[in-house]
Amino acid sequence: MSAEESKISKSRLEALVDGIFAFAMTLLVTGLTIPVLPGPVAAAELPALVAAMRPEFISLLIAFFILASFWLAHHRQFHHVRMVDMNLVRINLCILLCVILLPFTTSISGDYDHVRIAVDLFHFNLFFLGLFFLVHWWYVNRTPAVTNGEIPKADAGNGMRRSLIVPSVAVIGLIIAFFDPRLSMMVYLLLIPVFFLQSRFSARY
Amino acid sequence: MSAEESKISKSRLEALVDGIFAFAMTLLVTGLTIPVLPGPVAAAELPALVAAMRPEFISLLIAFFILASFWLAHHRQFHHVRMVDMNLVRINLCILLCVILLPFTTSISGDYDHVRIAVDLFHFNLFFLGLFFLVHWWYVNRTPAVTNGEIPKADAGNGMRRSLIVPSVAVIGLIIAFFDPRLSMMVYLLLIPVFFLQSRFSARY
Amino acid sequence: MSAEESKISKSRLEALVDGIFAFAMTLLVTGLTIPVLPGPVAAAELPALVAAMRPEFISLLIAFFILASFWLAHHRQFHHVRMVDMNLVRINLCILLCVILLPFTTSISGDYDHVRIAVDLFHFNLFFLGLFFLVHWWYVNRTPAVTNGEIPKADAGNGMRRSLIVPSVAVIGLIIAFFDPRLSMMVYLLLIPVFFLQSRFSARY
Amino acid sequence: MSAEESKISKSRLEALVDGIFAFAMTLLVTGLTIPVLPGPVAAAELPALVAAMRPEFISLLIAFFILASFWLAHHRQFHHVRMVDMNLVRINLCILLCVILLPFTTSISGDYDHVRIAVDLFHFNLFFLGLFFLVHWWYVNRTPAVTNGEIPKADAGNGMRRSLIVPSVAVIGLIIAFFDPRLSMMVYLLLIPVFFLQSRFSARY
Repeated sequence: MSAEESKISKSRLEALVDGIFAFAMTLLVTGLTIPVLPGPVAAAELPALVAAMRPEFISLLIAFFILASFWLAHHRQFHHVRMVDMNLVRINLCILLCVILLPFTTSISGDYDHVRIAVDLFHFNLFFLGLFFLVHWWYVNRTPAVTNGEIPKADAGNGMRRSLIVPSVAVIGLIIAFFDPRLSMMVYLLLIPVFFLQSRFSARY
Repeated sequence: MSAEESKISKSRLEALVDGIFAFAMTLLVTGLTIPVLPGPVAAAELPALVAAMRPEFISLLIAFFILASFWLAHHRQFHHVRMVDMNLVRINLCILLCVILLPFTTSISGDYDHVRIAVDLFHFNLFFLGLFFLVHWWYVNRTPAVTNGEIPKADAGNGMRRSLIVPSVAVIGLIIAFFDPRLSMMVYLLLIPVFFLQSRFSARY
Repeated sequence: MSAEESKISKSRLEALVDGIFAFAMTLLVTGLTIPVLPGPVAAAELPALVAAMRPEFISLLIAFFILASFWLAHHRQFHHVRMVDMNLVRINLCILLCVILLPFTTSISGDYDHVRIAVDLFHFNLFFLGLFFLVHWWYVNRTPAVTNGEIPKADAGNGMRRSLIVPSVAVIGLIIAFFDPRLSMMVYLLLIPVFFLQSRFSARY
Repeated sequence: MSAEESKISKSRLEALVDGIFAFAMTLLVTGLTIPVLPGPVAAAELPALVAAMRPEFISLLIAFFILASFWLAHHRQFHHVRMVDMNLVRINLCILLCVILLPFTTSISGDYDHVRIAVDLFHFNLFFLGLFFLVHWWYVNRTPAVTNGEIPKADAGNGMRRSLIVPSVAVIGLIIAFFDPRLSMMVYLLLIPVFFLQSRFSARY
């Protein structure tokens, strides 16, 4: 089998991952639906409609920076990968499935941020995205055959802790959504300033 | 002519193939249409509408993992390719045409999974996608000019058998669709656990 | 200036060109709009609606293989390019502008293949796409600074002749559109079998 | 931290940037919405509807060439970058956020070019896009750790001046939009001929 598996090159899997991340990040904009108005009333009604798009912008902002963070995390983890086997391919495909679903869950949670099922779709999407990254890191650590050289104990530990952040935040979001769907989306906003202000922490998720 | 043809580099054809596979896999999400509801009733009606999207999710899931499998198959086959000639380009373009059509046939078979013509479009799409991969592999094997070194008899045989799986499953789908369109989509679901559980088989399609 | 210009690497311009070609080819599918029907009548009405999409499929088929042909032509031409200057960048941007517009003109000419202005948009799009490729080839030939070594007189001549084919066919399409818009789209269908049957000719456009 | 940061390779950040620029440039076409008309009246009404799309075409043209210019500017600036740190990643992500929003602001300003808030969204989008490029260039200049060798004083100055052009034009657009939204979009058209006629100036934005 290893002969078979060795045919999947690391660089090409990275190319697919980078392509899908870049494309999903760009597709997020399609969630911003432009209201269709007849010429005359447009000038009068558009300002209110644009103002009403605020939650859609917030969802897009959250999804964009979280995808960017996972893209960075993927690079950090793949930095340790030397050889790609079928299991690693499978884990990466589960990650990519969560990535391509994000433009949909971002859009629906932006359009219906007051409806629990809409925001729950977003929380579940991020929960599983984070979970598969956790599995990815766990698998890379426990499989000497795929890593290039020994991974320092400290790095392995930090990596695990980092990978737990987004799934945990998503669970908090799911709980808050019971009481207030709109508020539950805000938990992720906390991650953005963190991502920009605190270098060491930004490396965490 | 060979001078002309030698101008098509393997790496650039791979880049086009990888790009189109990545885009098509990401575009699948555009098949998940978000229901437009007035604010007040949204909270009440959205849960039912999201539940009704289950077939669309299933179609997306099927299409995603089948595209991923073909992307893997393409790498396995191109592993043996040294030089790209116009015929190989033409076969690859037929493959890519089937790939770009998949987001459409996935979406329509997800929206109308109870209508035979809708699911038939999906089955035919996968049938031809698999068929062109079969032609691709057959051509690579019979054309020493494009391969890098001798392909072992065993590999060639396994490759042919693998390439027959999806077209065969698509034909079974077309037959089942006569009696029950919705059920006919489920034949592909069998391939997903297989893809994840059984390493040697997963390498088959 | 040359210092400035030398900062635009050939490989990165190729990456942008390949990316936009791959993306435009995949976006063509978005022109296939899925009819929205209430569950009950779907089974009865969908077959007729799918049959009515035939012209949209034909437009997609034409656009896909013409984009593929131009992608091949771009590789043939860039095979002779050693250094990229600002003029070459500008010509390539005009080509890319025509490429990104093609999914729109393909879709509108597919939806309204009986309306002259709709098909004319498609003909004009291909006319200018071909024209800029002609300018591209002409510029590469007359600018020793950008080519790697001497281009054989014969190659230069063939290249010019090839680059004239699509613009000429587009003009014929524009003329036929006067009398029969639907028929005018068929002129391009002639190029597809040619592309597949006749290797030397396929290299022509 | 530097160990962490060194894991983000320049080439992969470039790949993400190139990918998102290519996607965003291609997605601009989705702003050209195809009018839905019943067969019979299509022939009669389509010409007027296509003519009415002129402002959408103009917005697309502006956005396309401005994205292309920024893509060129990014290459010029990255030409000086040797090592990527987290701050540079953050600045690039802010740039990419503005890039993915452009298809939306282009489309809405094209549909409602007579409504001030619509064109203001476009002006603000370009203002921030240009601003982050200014920050990018400023950071590259003041951070020896990321540059490869000394940047000539003259280049640094030219770069700053160039980076000021688009933000300044956007501000002019915002001011003109007070009095005439439609006219305010035209300020960018001035940049296009400049981009094509004047090589040294074209390098400016």
